[in-house]
Amino acid sequence: MSKRQIRLGAFVPGTSQHVAGWRHPQARPQDSHNLKYFIELAKTAERGLFDAYFLADVPVTVDPDTTPDLGLNGTFSAGLEPVSLFSALAAVTEHIGFIATASTTYEAPYNLARKFASLDHLSEGRAAWNVVTTSGSVVSKNYGINDALLPKERYERADEFIEVAQKLWDSWEDDAFEYNKQTGQFFTGEKLHPPRFKGKHLAVHGALNIARPPQGYPVIVQAGQSEDGRELAAKYAEVIFTAQQKLEDAQAFYRDVKSRLIKYGRHADDLKIMPGVSIFVAQTEAEARAKYDELNAYIHPTLGLNLLKQLGGFTEDLSQFDLDQTLPEHLTQAQNGASRQQLILEIARKNNFTIRQLYQWVASARGHWTLIGTPEQIVDQLQAWFENEAADGFNILPPTTPASLDDFVDLVVPELQRRGLFRTAYEGKTLRENLGLKRPENQYVLEKRHTSQAS
Amino acid sequence: MSKRQIRLGAFVPGTSQHVAGWRHPQARPQDSHNLKYFIELAKTAERGLFDAYFLADVPVTVDPDTTPDLGLNGTFSAGLEPVSLFSALAAVTEHIGFIATASTTYEAPYNLARKFASLDHLSEGRAAWNVVTTSGSVVSKNYGINDALLPKERYERADEFIEVAQKLWDSWEDDAFEYNKQTGQFFTGEKLHPPRFKGKHLAVHGALNIARPPQGYPVIVQAGQSEDGRELAAKYAEVIFTAQQKLEDAQAFYRDVKSRLIKYGRHADDLKIMPGVSIFVAQTEAEARAKYDELNAYIHPTLGLNLLKQLGGFTEDLSQFDLDQTLPEHLTQAQNGASRQQLILEIARKNNFTIRQLYQWVASARGHWTLIGTPEQIVDQLQAWFENEAADGFNILPPTTPASLDDFVDLVVPELQRRGLFRTAYEGKTLRENLGLKRPENQYVLEKRHTSQAS
Ligand SMILES: Cc1cc2nc3c(=O)[nH]c(=O)nc-3n(C[C@H](O)[C@H](O)[C@H](O)COP(=O)(O)O)c2cc1C
Ligand SMILES: Cc1cc2nc3c(=O)[nH]c(=O)nc-3n(C[C@H](O)[C@H](O)[C@H](O)COP(=O)(O)O)c2cc1C
Repeated sequence: MSKRQIRLGAFVPGTSQHVAGWRHPQARPQDSHNLKYFIELAKTAERGLFDAYFLADVPVTVDPDTTPDLGLNGTFSAGLEPVSLFSALAAVTEHIGFIATASTTYEAPYNLARKFASLDHLSEGRAAWNVVTTSGSVVSKNYGINDALLPKERYERADEFIEVAQKLWDSWEDDAFEYNKQTGQFFTGEKLHPPRFKGKHLAVHGALNIARPPQGYPVIVQAGQSEDGRELAAKYAEVIFTAQQKLEDAQAFYRDVKSRLIKYGRHADDLKIMPGVSIFVAQTEAEARAKYDELNAYIHPTLGLNLLKQLGGFTEDLSQFDLDQTLPEHLTQAQNGASRQQLILEIARKNNFTIRQLYQWVASARGHWTLIGTPEQIVDQLQAWFENEAADGFNILPPTTPASLDDFVDLVVPELQRRGLFRTAYEGKTLRENLGLKRPENQYVLEKRHTSQAS
Repeated sequence: MSKRQIRLGAFVPGTSQHVAGWRHPQARPQDSHNLKYFIELAKTAERGLFDAYFLADVPVTVDPDTTPDLGLNGTFSAGLEPVSLFSALAAVTEHIGFIATASTTYEAPYNLARKFASLDHLSEGRAAWNVVTTSGSVVSKNYGINDALLPKERYERADEFIEVAQKLWDSWEDDAFEYNKQTGQFFTGEKLHPPRFKGKHLAVHGALNIARPPQGYPVIVQAGQSEDGRELAAKYAEVIFTAQQKLEDAQAFYRDVKSRLIKYGRHADDLKIMPGVSIFVAQTEAEARAKYDELNAYIHPTLGLNLLKQLGGFTEDLSQFDLDQTLPEHLTQAQNGASRQQLILEIARKNNFTIRQLYQWVASARGHWTLIGTPEQIVDQLQAWFENEAADGFNILPPTTPASLDDFVDLVVPELQRRGLFRTAYEGKTLRENLGLKRPENQYVLEKRHTSQAS
């Protein structure tokens, strides 16, 4: 068996991952709806031999009624739909996979299964679906639903959704289509399998109107950290995108999820855990730190304070205090007991951060692990996680697009390769082949085989 | 003003339009899920200066429980999803527009508006949405709905759907995004307009998460012939795809729909009526007829008889009769009074068709106008419809892909150009520009202007 190597996802929104990344001199927010720009980004990622390009998605945007800093917080306000963008990129790339996010709460299985099968055909086997359940009643109002499903129900629905999506992808056996010009037989009737699915939340009667995807199913990716999220991942996911800040936490998560696989008849290798990591890299540590400071200086104070207030769970208006002093005493006590608030207060205390430094830290990391340093320093860290049961790979979150993606490809990838931790050429043609995942068999073919063996 | 010219849509499924088109020696049904093949087709259509590539779509396929000739009737069994396919084609073409069919009955407005806006951005203004209401309770079962909406309700929902889709596309004014790196202002708050829509069937609260499409709205296309369908078209459609067999019927339809525009404050030029036409063309009439006969000979008798039975509304099994004799006497009387049945019986009588000839006629035309002849003969007919208030253009349905598309581009297009009926180069960059349609203003900008003029 070949040596275990790091898998890499490029999590690269057109407008940058860092809230102020778009203000970087090289950033091109004006190109955030421009295909040519995304072609450049995809080609850079492909040059860096990334397994996949990853796009998040939530069917909602900022709202005048609920966004206090309207106009400042634009990073995720608007953008291209992932499956259509990736379809376009499939036409002009050769190797890189495409992980598109789509919600089990706000789509119909028939439509979602169809579009992902389509992307898998268009890309000749490079599609992946990041299964999200999409929290929040704000989103549900965009679908005419007044009350969002409870988290529990969202995950129940997600479970049914993946089950029926897999049935839909199995509608046609791989060799169902004969295209026999001599006999006039277009397909073999016995190789067509409508799902006839009736669940608690979903029902689908007929077969999918597209041939089985080249990969069998697109790769199933999952992002969700709760108990229900982990269980769903253990049952179905082949890649997990997770937010982990510390080695020990990442290890605990890694072991917990991997240990859940057995009861679903799965092997630890069937699931690749890939935490997100935001990287500021340069030839010297000072330069890397300067890149970090530069982006943070671009954070508009109004925006930074709002993010700090929101994520930290503060109730008072923070702009009344001197931003270059530490948090006033009465705010340094836990306010709502949430783990994120505790983390923020702990960071403030430990680093003796001023309010400005604190909001910069909050706004910059946004829940993800952040590394600042030389290529060697960065790779030391990645290697430690990779070799100590904390990660099978990483989703790289370049803080500013395109500069930090270029930096990663030009500086970090060679160092990973030098240490034998990363490929020097794509191994396979499909995303599954590159990730080292097997192609799932058609469930109806398996069934037939079992039935015929039993009789 | 420049001379009025014919608009052309290329209605080209990968597996051919004619039920047996895929059996033609040059047909490539095995490539029907292959992007490279569609790139060739799109480039041929672009070489022919077509306004748009048109794809139908219904979220359903053949079913073992209801398809008697399972395996033979494959033409529309499986294929790529139109918006993702067109997104890929957008990356490798320059001029041709893309008309994707999507259903108002089985999609959510937020998702549909997003993906069409996305396609319009990816193609830099070449997207169109063929609005269909999708008949049939068979489809609804794929969405967990047991009873399909009544036609009346489907059209009510469609009307609300287009209204709210337009509001979603207007969420952001054209110049809403400032991307001002100096001030940190990403967008102008006052230029964001969430729809806050509450209808009888649909509700959407928040703004769309994508910038306004380059064309304002994608071009709105409609295909539906009923009273409700015509009214919807008169209110919103900019192109109609219609099935008309005779000049007089086409003229009646044309005048009827155009006369309905006035009450919506619209001009006759704001709507292009484009009937479908299936064309068999060759340098001599005999050769063209041979092409027609060749395809018809490929129709499997079982399939042909089933189509004849179904479309003709017969209750008896037709395979018990001699296929090379005319219909037995007792079947030549009207059975259900439907207009399609009457048309079929009339054709049989007039041409003294044998049963085989009759099913060939039924299976081949499938409700669309069919022309067989030399380029001059074909263009004579098209010109007659175009110059006599029956059509503003045509959706060309090549019976077999790719051969009949090549034939049209190589033989008919030059003849159209010779007579000055068709462009010799694309006029504009966007589909609207090529079709001669205006770019719609943002409704909220219009509102502001009216309010400020009134005060
Ligand atoms: C790393 C990460 C990325 C996520 N990306 C998305 C996304 O792009 N779109 C979305 O709707 N939800 C996204 N989510 C939210 C999850 O789908 C889920 O709704 C949320 O995490 C709540 O579920 P949980 O309690 O299991 O974590 C993401 C979650 C995580 C942890
Ligand atoms: C020329 C033509 C093309 C059509 N194409 C589609 C299609 O691709 N998908 C679909 O679901 N319905 C399609 N329809 C059906 C219409 O959307 C509509 O459901 C049907 O015509 C019934 O409505 P009507 O009674 O107004 O004609 C088409 C109809 C016509 C006339």
